[in-house]
Amino acid sequence: MNHAIRILGIDPGLRRTGWGLVEARGNALSFVASGTVRAPLDGEMAHRLVVLHEGLSEIVARFQPDEAAVEQTFVNKDAAGTLKLGQARGIALLVPARAGISVAEYSPNAVKKTIVGTGHAEKDQIRMMVNVLLPKAEFDSDDAADALAVAICHIHHRGATARLKAALGG
Amino acid sequence: MNHAIRILGIDPGLRRTGWGLVEARGNALSFVASGTVRAPLDGEMAHRLVVLHEGLSEIVARFQPDEAAVEQTFVNKDAAGTLKLGQARGIALLVPARAGISVAEYSPNAVKKTIVGTGHAEKDQIRMMVNVLLPKAEFDSDDAADALAVAICHIHHRGATARLKAALGG
Repeated sequence: MNHAIRILGIDPGLRRTGWGLVEARGNALSFVASGTVRAPLDGEMAHRLVVLHEGLSEIVARFQPDEAAVEQTFVNKDAAGTLKLGQARGIALLVPARAGISVAEYSPNAVKKTIVGTGHAEKDQIRMMVNVLLPKAEFDSDDAADALAVAICHIHHRGATARLKAALGG
Repeated sequence: MNHAIRILGIDPGLRRTGWGLVEARGNALSFVASGTVRAPLDGEMAHRLVVLHEGLSEIVARFQPDEAAVEQTFVNKDAAGTLKLGQARGIALLVPARAGISVAEYSPNAVKKTIVGTGHAEKDQIRMMVNVLLPKAEFDSDDAADALAVAICHIHHRGATARLKAALGG
């Protein structure tokens, strides 16, 4: 694995969707870019999803990631909130997939375990570890930091999967 | 309202998404087409959403609806199921909105009340009333029948909204 692989991480939400791009060359990670797509807080739901779709499409077109990873967040408070979050997630999964990019999904616990070492980490610990692993990282929201964490999580897991496949001769 | 208005109704689901097109000319309704987009039952979630996106995009391009209406279904059984349904709904809202079509949303109770006259109607009653209101209607699934019901519901409500606006001089 000597060529660079560029991973797009996404932490989807209806108000704010964080995104982050990380490059891996062997075991070396480097920060590429990150940001937050902000959809309008009110108006027709369908229009809010169009804004999110446009924002993510622009990022995929501009940075041409090789693979994508989306955080499997879900709110527990009520079904209506979960349904709305699902709508934003649908767009986050669709945009890279339509560009022909494979899209992995990771639970928040899997991301925390990979980055911090425990599934019960706080937001601050994730931000700190993202800064340690990607010293040049800049992010404008917790969601953007989470998106970088998802990208790092995927880089770890895809390496393990590739090694397993190689070991099994697959 | 002497020109025909063509409405696309959508009943979204991850496995089956029903769609139905109804034309209204004044108070006269007519059936245009209906069907079911079936996404693969397994595989990467993002790919399943791409299949749904392609199916709905084809319908919008082929039938050129003037407005769209999406059923606001949500399952109550568990958060994971609700999140998945939300993902499919996100695509159902996105596709017409990206084509510049306004997208209304109606709860299942609002649809039942408009079509059958009570919010507690059974699936059979909805199918029967769709057949009464659109004698030429054909549908290949309950989801397609529900989609036609959503389209009819929207035709009733948009007319009322337009009359109200006119009465208020808006």
